[in-house]
Amino acid sequence: MIAVLKRGTTPEQTEHLIAWLKNMKLDVHISSGQEVTVLGLVGDTSRVDIELLSSLEIIESVKRVSEPYKQANRKFHPNDTVIQAGNVKIGGGHFAMIAGPCSVESEEQIVGVAKDVKNFGADILRGGAFKPRTSPYAFQGLKEEGLRLLLEAKKATGLPIITEIMNIRALDLFEDVDIIQVGARNMQNFDMLQELGKTNKPILLKRGLANTLQELLMSAEYIMSEGNENIILCERGIRTYETYTRNTLDLSAVPVLHEITHLPVVVDPSHATGKSALVPSMAAAAAACGADGIMVEVHNNPACALCDGAQSITPAQFLELNRTVRAVREAIQ
Amino acid sequence: MIAVLKRGTTPEQTEHLIAWLKNMKLDVHISSGQEVTVLGLVGDTSRVDIELLSSLEIIESVKRVSEPYKQANRKFHPNDTVIQAGNVKIGGGHFAMIAGPCSVESEEQIVGVAKDVKNFGADILRGGAFKPRTSPYAFQGLKEEGLRLLLEAKKATGLPIITEIMNIRALDLFEDVDIIQVGARNMQNFDMLQELGKTNKPILLKRGLANTLQELLMSAEYIMSEGNENIILCERGIRTYETYTRNTLDLSAVPVLHEITHLPVVVDPSHATGKSALVPSMAAAAAACGADGIMVEVHNNPACALCDGAQSITPAQFLELNRTVRAVREAIQ
Amino acid sequence: MIAVLKRGTTPEQTEHLIAWLKNMKLDVHISSGQEVTVLGLVGDTSRVDIELLSSLEIIESVKRVSEPYKQANRKFHPNDTVIQAGNVKIGGGHFAMIAGPCSVESEEQIVGVAKDVKNFGADILRGGAFKPRTSPYAFQGLKEEGLRLLLEAKKATGLPIITEIMNIRALDLFEDVDIIQVGARNMQNFDMLQELGKTNKPILLKRGLANTLQELLMSAEYIMSEGNENIILCERGIRTYETYTRNTLDLSAVPVLHEITHLPVVVDPSHATGKSALVPSMAAAAAACGADGIMVEVHNNPACALCDGAQSITPAQFLELNRTVRAVREAIQ
Amino acid sequence: MIAVLKRGTTPEQTEHLIAWLKNMKLDVHISSGQEVTVLGLVGDTSRVDIELLSSLEIIESVKRVSEPYKQANRKFHPNDTVIQAGNVKIGGGHFAMIAGPCSVESEEQIVGVAKDVKNFGADILRGGAFKPRTSPYAFQGLKEEGLRLLLEAKKATGLPIITEIMNIRALDLFEDVDIIQVGARNMQNFDMLQELGKTNKPILLKRGLANTLQELLMSAEYIMSEGNENIILCERGIRTYETYTRNTLDLSAVPVLHEITHLPVVVDPSHATGKSALVPSMAAAAAACGADGIMVEVHNNPACALCDGAQSITPAQFLELNRTVRAVREAIQ
Repeated sequence: MIAVLKRGTTPEQTEHLIAWLKNMKLDVHISSGQEVTVLGLVGDTSRVDIELLSSLEIIESVKRVSEPYKQANRKFHPNDTVIQAGNVKIGGGHFAMIAGPCSVESEEQIVGVAKDVKNFGADILRGGAFKPRTSPYAFQGLKEEGLRLLLEAKKATGLPIITEIMNIRALDLFEDVDIIQVGARNMQNFDMLQELGKTNKPILLKRGLANTLQELLMSAEYIMSEGNENIILCERGIRTYETYTRNTLDLSAVPVLHEITHLPVVVDPSHATGKSALVPSMAAAAAACGADGIMVEVHNNPACALCDGAQSITPAQFLELNRTVRAVREAIQ
Repeated sequence: MIAVLKRGTTPEQTEHLIAWLKNMKLDVHISSGQEVTVLGLVGDTSRVDIELLSSLEIIESVKRVSEPYKQANRKFHPNDTVIQAGNVKIGGGHFAMIAGPCSVESEEQIVGVAKDVKNFGADILRGGAFKPRTSPYAFQGLKEEGLRLLLEAKKATGLPIITEIMNIRALDLFEDVDIIQVGARNMQNFDMLQELGKTNKPILLKRGLANTLQELLMSAEYIMSEGNENIILCERGIRTYETYTRNTLDLSAVPVLHEITHLPVVVDPSHATGKSALVPSMAAAAAACGADGIMVEVHNNPACALCDGAQSITPAQFLELNRTVRAVREAIQ
Repeated sequence: MIAVLKRGTTPEQTEHLIAWLKNMKLDVHISSGQEVTVLGLVGDTSRVDIELLSSLEIIESVKRVSEPYKQANRKFHPNDTVIQAGNVKIGGGHFAMIAGPCSVESEEQIVGVAKDVKNFGADILRGGAFKPRTSPYAFQGLKEEGLRLLLEAKKATGLPIITEIMNIRALDLFEDVDIIQVGARNMQNFDMLQELGKTNKPILLKRGLANTLQELLMSAEYIMSEGNENIILCERGIRTYETYTRNTLDLSAVPVLHEITHLPVVVDPSHATGKSALVPSMAAAAAACGADGIMVEVHNNPACALCDGAQSITPAQFLELNRTVRAVREAIQ
Repeated sequence: MIAVLKRGTTPEQTEHLIAWLKNMKLDVHISSGQEVTVLGLVGDTSRVDIELLSSLEIIESVKRVSEPYKQANRKFHPNDTVIQAGNVKIGGGHFAMIAGPCSVESEEQIVGVAKDVKNFGADILRGGAFKPRTSPYAFQGLKEEGLRLLLEAKKATGLPIITEIMNIRALDLFEDVDIIQVGARNMQNFDMLQELGKTNKPILLKRGLANTLQELLMSAEYIMSEGNENIILCERGIRTYETYTRNTLDLSAVPVLHEITHLPVVVDPSHATGKSALVPSMAAAAAACGADGIMVEVHNNPACALCDGAQSITPAQFLELNRTVRAVREAIQ
């Protein structure tokens, strides 16, 4: 961390500041140039309140030189992390196509869709049992029964499954789930992240609606700092002023994350756009910029889906989407 | 809910749609004009997926005529809700000044600040025991010990206290807390909201970083639908592209919320701006547009605060802020 | 346009409203259902102030049924527009690779880069002569001399050229320019748009920093309503809260625009990301979701570029980018 | 400007960089600490491309120590600027209430409103003659005739007038206008700003829809660098994801601008909110946080206004608004 002192700072003021900083167990190195005096702060700067330091009268500006995330940082872990879910690998060149309905609705539905997406190229089955809904009056998912049905679909197809957790008290129910999803609204539910850090389950961590990529990595860090390094990041659209799409899919997140972290990055074009007609194009675009996986909603009868039907594609559309995505991946090799 | 059909829709298609809607237990009223055919949907439309309906081929557009929130809706509850916290009232003309440090740090600190802010005009004491921090390596609050010290400060001054809950499993610890705060990051932690709805504690619900006012009311609705109607809404700044302030304080939220809901509205200028120099001006502005309360961070030694010191004002500044806020309230009567 | 009346509206109020609407030369069709009364407004509703209408006491809500853009609307012009610039076509299946430096700096530089990008696959040469810069103290481009040098490069390579206009009074200087660019900051400089509408030059219209896709089309409509239908739309990133990239490239704009308008859509990943390392990935993604062209900044010595060097790639990187983009286009056929 | 070098930078690389920087006519001061090497760059750093410098391989980070605006900077001009428009002063403790219709529609209308707002407390008359409208098909203002009528209203009441310019070629028509308004859409129409800088007219410069406060000051700098220092800044709402209000009024802009610039700051709550019911509250809030003036739309018959009627208040409402605003100003003294 670098702190630049204002011109006119007296030696007494400087000493006072240095004493305060050393009190926080930091080493302080002074660089006095003709024009500026710069303090280099070394040690565990992650506890320093950068805004407070900036607000001191004698401080011109403060700048972090190192990123606040450690375990997620590619600088310290140059090799790609590869996540194993069942017999499927994600990251480090391994690509996973994740597909399935927004909500589990019935055994017939989930097993049917599971067989379809497996036949048409999916590697992993998705399906919601606990559904976060803006309204308390909307369908909230089949909950435990939904989880049970999802496991039936896993048994019937052999596909690993991913589903969302909404309350850490339900963790026991997720024992046979292959990847636990943390939804956008819970990206900064820090207590839940820490509890998930104590498991060794793969976690798919969705970027919050208005969170920066650095905040996403800090949330990954919450999980990793408790010991669980099996994290998949997921870009699912951010909130902007544009209303034509539900959210704005920020695909530059893919190459950016690949640059700054070793964790795999999956893209969810269904929730991002909210419109099934846009899903195939955006899935192809995600593959083109290097995503390690794509997660799409597929429903055998979108017009009857209990939630988010507007963004679901049919199995036939999924077949075509999968073909294009695989071809695009070939093209960028 | 109103659904406008596309021109050229056949009678068969229309009938098919109506059957589908009736299947969702909705009454459907047809208005066929020369130019447009409009379906009026009556019944519990809160379960209708508006995006799905919009995506159907024969639908031109869909519009909700009624708001999706019921219990928070001023239409159905025209009178202002007044919240009672200890001997303090908020809402319906009652104004509360809430002040205290970001974090509880020690008994001396919290009791000292509590006495100061009481003498200088505060009605309620705030102080964080469980602190949501972006980084797992930052100070996370004194937790249970912090709560204990806060209760000491309550005993010493008689001020009701407000403090944040981060995990519903800690609810028992909040028995003697007068107002439980739900932070911005947990505004859509729906499981926690529902649990809080089963208590009868006053809840201060902060608007999420990028949530609309309607979403804020839907989260209030989650609490109210479980039986707890003691809710105070809090505007604390939203995330925008502007970086000079930490967030952008959306003060128009105050008159808007007063128009559409009967719940009281409090403003937190400290977290919104992130800079102590801006807090007094924005507190005065909040009072001028009708806020039912203002919550500010006050610390006896901001430069040593363990978190968010940059946005804390001193007790002396609080004295002046309180004077101005009360004068502004007089002016707008 | 559909206006829904509030329940309890009296027949007198309704008649008064209808008279007012007819006064605006609209036909009004009444659809009275059991639950709602809906007015269908037919005629030139583009002059109706939708916000004013919504604000009337007896109005529940108002909804435009038809888009406010006409000439840019695919509904009325189902076939793709193909733009001809020199011997190059854009749109309707024709793809154009546009490359060149941010600013024209010298004859050697612009002719050198032009030859390189031509050899490496570019169809059109870009280069800035008039440069919009946030600061009045920053390099503002070589202006007329820059235009002259750009024409030299055109002569030397045969590539059609595109360059930005900043002031309509300079229009005469653009006679031999093949495509005139309207920058993001001038997207709603309506007077300039109307003047450009009186020419028959192809216009590349960049989306403003915080403009919706509908506003982009309304600006195209300003040009088209004056007679010039040669418009290329350009997505170049929008402003969001994320600061890692300069702007957030909204690639879903590509399939959305293809759905609602017949005009070709070009993507500029250089300005969107502001970082050369991200340009190749985002160019590939743009191609994958169907862009009709890609515009990238290429400089023979990015570290010496007078402006925007950080986002420029080298000719060698461009060669590789072009190869990938063409392969991706093959893959999505 | 401060540039921090990466660890491991060789002496040769450092010398090469320093030579390059000196070539840009900068003095370079080296501060070599144990942990970091920092270069202090002195001279005209406004021409340095901070993004380019940051992108160099050996650079860890770059930070501007001084603001890029000079003439608008309070550091160099500590005293408040006071603008004189007719016999009215704005800034430095002088407050101006600006009121009038969105558009000039007829002599009767503008003279009538002018008399009303004068009687009810306005200091300056506003009225649009040239109207920027998103749609080319919407009412664009009475243009020259509108200007003529506005001058009639000035003559009839003695109120100074403010109106918007949309095209610099129309500048001659503004000779008797007291304050020329630059609209949000033209905030970065740099050619127009420079031309206005060659006049000595007071300019009211509106913040763009998605522009930062620093960009607003850089646009002021464009005008000032040509010699015209008579600038009033105007906050009129920024674009965010919230749709309940047309824009989000960023009132913290008022104290922030007062801190960093000496120019007066006016707030326009009418355009910001888009809803007349919110205008009085937000006007009071603007006064409470120290605005030097408030600009509101007043129409004698809002329901018939040709544009923006939804946000106009009546003269009677203006009378009450003015009373409250003046009382709030008293309260904050």
